[in-house]
Amino acid sequence: MSSAAPRVTGQDHSGPDHLWSVEEHLEDILATVRPLEPIELHLLDAQGCVLVEDVTVPVSLPPFDNSSMDGYAVRVADVAGASEEFPAALEVVGDVAAGQAEPLHVGPGQAARIMTGAPLPPGAETVVPVEWTDGGLGEGPVAGMRARSLGPEGATGHVHVYRPAEARAHVRAKGSDVKAGDRALEAGTILGPPQIGLLAAIGRGTVRVRPRPRVVVLSTGSELVQPGAELGTGHIYDSNSFALTAAARDAGAIAYRVGAVADDAETLRSTIEDQLVRADLMVTTGGVSVGAYDVVKEALSHVADADEAGSGIEFRKLAMQPGKPQGFGSIGPDHTPLLALPGNPVSSYVSFELFVRPAIRALMGLPDVHRPTTRATLTADKALTSPKGRRQFLRGTYADGRVTPVGGAGSHLVAALAHADALIVVPEDTESVEPGAEVEVVLLG
Amino acid sequence: MSSAAPRVTGQDHSGPDHLWSVEEHLEDILATVRPLEPIELHLLDAQGCVLVEDVTVPVSLPPFDNSSMDGYAVRVADVAGASEEFPAALEVVGDVAAGQAEPLHVGPGQAARIMTGAPLPPGAETVVPVEWTDGGLGEGPVAGMRARSLGPEGATGHVHVYRPAEARAHVRAKGSDVKAGDRALEAGTILGPPQIGLLAAIGRGTVRVRPRPRVVVLSTGSELVQPGAELGTGHIYDSNSFALTAAARDAGAIAYRVGAVADDAETLRSTIEDQLVRADLMVTTGGVSVGAYDVVKEALSHVADADEAGSGIEFRKLAMQPGKPQGFGSIGPDHTPLLALPGNPVSSYVSFELFVRPAIRALMGLPDVHRPTTRATLTADKALTSPKGRRQFLRGTYADGRVTPVGGAGSHLVAALAHADALIVVPEDTESVEPGAEVEVVLLG
Repeated sequence: MSSAAPRVTGQDHSGPDHLWSVEEHLEDILATVRPLEPIELHLLDAQGCVLVEDVTVPVSLPPFDNSSMDGYAVRVADVAGASEEFPAALEVVGDVAAGQAEPLHVGPGQAARIMTGAPLPPGAETVVPVEWTDGGLGEGPVAGMRARSLGPEGATGHVHVYRPAEARAHVRAKGSDVKAGDRALEAGTILGPPQIGLLAAIGRGTVRVRPRPRVVVLSTGSELVQPGAELGTGHIYDSNSFALTAAARDAGAIAYRVGAVADDAETLRSTIEDQLVRADLMVTTGGVSVGAYDVVKEALSHVADADEAGSGIEFRKLAMQPGKPQGFGSIGPDHTPLLALPGNPVSSYVSFELFVRPAIRALMGLPDVHRPTTRATLTADKALTSPKGRRQFLRGTYADGRVTPVGGAGSHLVAALAHADALIVVPEDTESVEPGAEVEVVLLG
Repeated sequence: MSSAAPRVTGQDHSGPDHLWSVEEHLEDILATVRPLEPIELHLLDAQGCVLVEDVTVPVSLPPFDNSSMDGYAVRVADVAGASEEFPAALEVVGDVAAGQAEPLHVGPGQAARIMTGAPLPPGAETVVPVEWTDGGLGEGPVAGMRARSLGPEGATGHVHVYRPAEARAHVRAKGSDVKAGDRALEAGTILGPPQIGLLAAIGRGTVRVRPRPRVVVLSTGSELVQPGAELGTGHIYDSNSFALTAAARDAGAIAYRVGAVADDAETLRSTIEDQLVRADLMVTTGGVSVGAYDVVKEALSHVADADEAGSGIEFRKLAMQPGKPQGFGSIGPDHTPLLALPGNPVSSYVSFELFVRPAIRALMGLPDVHRPTTRATLTADKALTSPKGRRQFLRGTYADGRVTPVGGAGSHLVAALAHADALIVVPEDTESVEPGAEVEVVLLG
């Protein structure tokens, strides 16, 4: 299942020297990534997904008049004027429990003991709560009924009713919640617990939604070692594939982490081709810059050449920091979209937030693909500096309308990132931001 | 694994007629439910969990001085005064790629081609980006290196450098991110994607956290039919077990949905006993009121009698609407906490939000167990009415400081619930709230 279509941005971005803006790159991605084809899923598997059908109520809820209290189903005239001093004495003809099959008729002078949710029996016009009666014990008002297993005689004998009841008191009318033919939920609804509850209530066991996208995350780099293993000379631990797999899950995807792939184009190509079968979106990190060992660039340029029309990965420079080198396009027979992110941990994480998260949410068909942003006052010891012509995303902590930078601008400061909850945006034309200035902030949630 | 301990509220709530406040009931639950015992989990399995150890950095990050650019590692003196007119010509002694094992020495008049992330080789003092050089091609500044597989000669020959570089330019110093012995993350940190990235970066393959609680959800009622099946006379579809399983997952739990159990105490008892083995928390719906068929009350009062000291389920009346009848306690050999919620769909959902969600989050050891609340202006056609002495929770939609009721007060209005995103709180001593008044609102997120 895939959703990539040829890109149609209508803009001329040709040439390797074009510096793409963040918006241009994002626009290209969102013009390419189409929502996944809907499938029918069991209710609990559809949690968090977007409904693609208008759901109509097949049968009214509640499907029958039923009692909202534990009590007695009676005729109005039989309890008119009843009081503690002059109770109405009625013959108990049996129990009406919820889900009970056999019908019961309530005639004049009679009462049926009725449980919450049970159908109002034929002949009965109203319900008196058990607390308004002696519960059949003849000793004044009671707090409740005895369990039937302990006191089966409660379903027989006589009951004294101490208060009158109007017609249909404590009765939930058929269709008072929803009526057959009503629109229960509209296409586009995101299915949370209450929506799943409503679908179950109207009898839907399955529902048609856009599924969660399957995202394959792989990092590249011959220097990468699996956490927990021993670190050799010149090696570092692979962190990107862990952070981005977690981030993809957080965005709503089913994410598969593929271990780090060494800087060998043939190995990378065959790994990607292997993984395509379970990918609605591929994400790689590393190997996209101007070095001689930038394996993603090398391997995927090759794939693009050999591929059918409409596919191909384009490597770009973006007017942003971190995250300048980026690759994007689609590969394989299904034109599976692929985002090739830079390898520095902070660069790849910021790139994920700006580009991959929106792509995942677009695949899900969600209406709002972006993180929320806000304006905040900068709290800092000194001015922030930013290179001209680059949009800078600094890590910060946000609270109560103020944002404070964490760590520096270095794209390898993964420790600082782990203590941030926001990105501070310094626009392309700004080279310095003084403490106390207002800045745009992306809230990482 | 279980966490229930005998309750110690220090208050006298004895007697079946005591009307518990929402706070008293919640306080009792939170005094009983203890955070789960920590376990060691693989990083990606620990997402969303609370760290229980202070994590110290075992090895500095980066673990060695390395290049932040693709370029050439050189000596400062060799490029002093270099310009496009008078470039420095240096002998290329080879490549330093990330993860490459063999060491390389840079002598006077020499340069090593170096890739981002690769260790600064012995002898080299600084890095000049490839864009400041001719890339060995002798034809002026280049935009990047050719892939090694396509141009292996790039690792040999001569390179012209067009700009000088200060000592340690484009070099990320060992330990500039975190130093060995630093505190990476504190106990109590919730592990999101960036925290998982940091743990991976410092080499942690597993981490000690409180696990997600396993929550077993079962509904009771002989009238309940599985959605998708045919609805017989007097039957309704089971919606509670679906809504609450989804809600438990949303709260962070691993939730198991058990199909609806008929109103038979023996069946219910044996079902619960069966399920205890996989439950850190049990949630039931229905059968907790004053009717003769209230099976949860019947079954669990019995369990309590036969159980060891410290266990037992207490059935209570709460001063709230919906959700008046509630059961809470612990059962089984591990004193597994159990919340018995009322059976009406809206009652059970509101009860979940108020009591079960905090219990789940307390089991996870999360610092903030409650939904956020805010104040909002009531937008409504007419005044809201509420019974005296009961705290009412009405469903509403919240936006921009205003809240609008959805549907009525009836506890069976599951359709309205599915269109709400907030609960409007009407306090016990308030019987009427006029449009335009300020009200407390629970945001359902």
